[in-house]
Amino acid sequence: MTEKSTLLNCHKRIAPYIHKTTVLTSKSIDKMIGAELFFKCENFQRMGAFKMRGATNAILQLSEAQKRKGVVTHSSGNFAQAISLAAKSLGISAHIVMPLNSPKVKQNAVKEYNGQITLCEPTLEAREKAAQQIINEIDATFIHPSNDIDVIHGNATAAMELLEEQPNLDYIFAPIGGGGLLAGTALAGYFFGNKCHIIGAEPVEADDAYRSLLSGTIQLNKSANTIADGLRTTLGAINFPIIKKHVKVITRVSEEEISKAMLLIWERMKIIVEPSSAVALAAVLKSQNKIRNQKVGIIISGGNVDFKNLPF
Amino acid sequence: MTEKSTLLNCHKRIAPYIHKTTVLTSKSIDKMIGAELFFKCENFQRMGAFKMRGATNAILQLSEAQKRKGVVTHSSGNFAQAISLAAKSLGISAHIVMPLNSPKVKQNAVKEYNGQITLCEPTLEAREKAAQQIINEIDATFIHPSNDIDVIHGNATAAMELLEEQPNLDYIFAPIGGGGLLAGTALAGYFFGNKCHIIGAEPVEADDAYRSLLSGTIQLNKSANTIADGLRTTLGAINFPIIKKHVKVITRVSEEEISKAMLLIWERMKIIVEPSSAVALAAVLKSQNKIRNQKVGIIISGGNVDFKNLPF
Repeated sequence: MTEKSTLLNCHKRIAPYIHKTTVLTSKSIDKMIGAELFFKCENFQRMGAFKMRGATNAILQLSEAQKRKGVVTHSSGNFAQAISLAAKSLGISAHIVMPLNSPKVKQNAVKEYNGQITLCEPTLEAREKAAQQIINEIDATFIHPSNDIDVIHGNATAAMELLEEQPNLDYIFAPIGGGGLLAGTALAGYFFGNKCHIIGAEPVEADDAYRSLLSGTIQLNKSANTIADGLRTTLGAINFPIIKKHVKVITRVSEEEISKAMLLIWERMKIIVEPSSAVALAAVLKSQNKIRNQKVGIIISGGNVDFKNLPF
Repeated sequence: MTEKSTLLNCHKRIAPYIHKTTVLTSKSIDKMIGAELFFKCENFQRMGAFKMRGATNAILQLSEAQKRKGVVTHSSGNFAQAISLAAKSLGISAHIVMPLNSPKVKQNAVKEYNGQITLCEPTLEAREKAAQQIINEIDATFIHPSNDIDVIHGNATAAMELLEEQPNLDYIFAPIGGGGLLAGTALAGYFFGNKCHIIGAEPVEADDAYRSLLSGTIQLNKSANTIADGLRTTLGAINFPIIKKHVKVITRVSEEEISKAMLLIWERMKIIVEPSSAVALAAVLKSQNKIRNQKVGIIISGGNVDFKNLPF
């Protein structure tokens, strides 16, 4: 059971290894929406995404014996880089299982952070098998990208910092993929907000969380055909109960809405955000009536973009 | 003759109408280059470029009678937007002569700032004729985008703010197109720097300033076939003497070097900068031996990018 002190201790623990990212505002987007928006810029976080927070916290919670044996995860995205960089910062070894077809640019980023890559077939089964094999061989500790309470607590610190700067936010919007960011944001809102509502933002094309919240049990994605590559994964048994308890609304957005929101941020704010982050602003745009004249936080989850594959 | 007090007064005059932009750093780019870089982020300036500074100062220097009659300029780029927004902020009318073939997105930006557009054939002759016609008809005051001492003084304030934060910069690199930014930066370095060398950064493909500095007289561009669309213009009789006096070196860079530097900033710093700004970092990369272990300022001139036409 998470307590307020758990989150405060977590923030203190990881603070030396992460950036306290800036909070940006945009007069022109505020005017367009009719609300006051505060963008927590995790695109400026180390390795370019909030994942650095959860990865660092999870590794710092290991025993000395575990640290000596290293960590293992499977991810083709930001968590692969996050675990690699967090492990490197702390002087321990990281083993990353990545699908054969993951982009070279992502493999190279992991290598740059000294992550040791094991390639596998691009199926969840192959990933899990490859990770298990590494665990069997060297007794490394497995860290899940989103369904891990230490990862969730680490992720919570982004919204904690945002609420430190803006204690009276009426809403915080965060994207939901695996659920680790939204669960963390929900805990931060519950313990540190002042009647702050947490809203999840999800692509229609991968709306497992929306349907899970409606039905009360974890649903699987029917498709994952979204430009928001960080949000194609599914909920887990650790983060879903937290989301169920603290999040009343998940707002779904279309691919076109994601693309428009991403272009809006690029053009008006001159910052690079990945499609998953644009999902949060797209949900804000869709909630315009509800949030009029309110203070709204948005977690900009990351800025790792494939410039060869822009949606606009 | 510019004096220190002229620049200080100029900064005070325009301060209410401009953003004091942030100065960013990047550990990974510093490590790559072996120097300490400070990026003055005029991409976060109002309308997305340093041009707002010069435009605002020029308009504020007009008499009340001149203000009532409005201003006119010809530009297809950032200065069109800058004059429009500056005029709008000050409640006066702006007439912008733009070539028929200028991108719709730029015409729309001018319209958004209430600029009144006159379209003309895409030649310098047609531009000047159209501007002259407006002057004849309504007695509006012409403001040149770069060859105007008030514009130069306004532009100087970017480097002044940078030197206020980092008084001991060894170098400041600024891109050179029409010469208004480099001349302003040179004045700022001379009056407010501590033995700070100012270096111009120019595309090989539009190297009029490089050849002008070598020969001592203004040379014309032989081509202007560069992705750095802000740097295709030529030096003027007002800014060149300032550059000749205070700038010893103009470093030329290839299109490939511009593209690589732009990608480096986008990927590592997660900010959107236009190709003209990347020219400055490209020149820094080319000067690696000279600047090792030095403190180096870079004027990021703007962030207005055509996302349909990226060089990478």
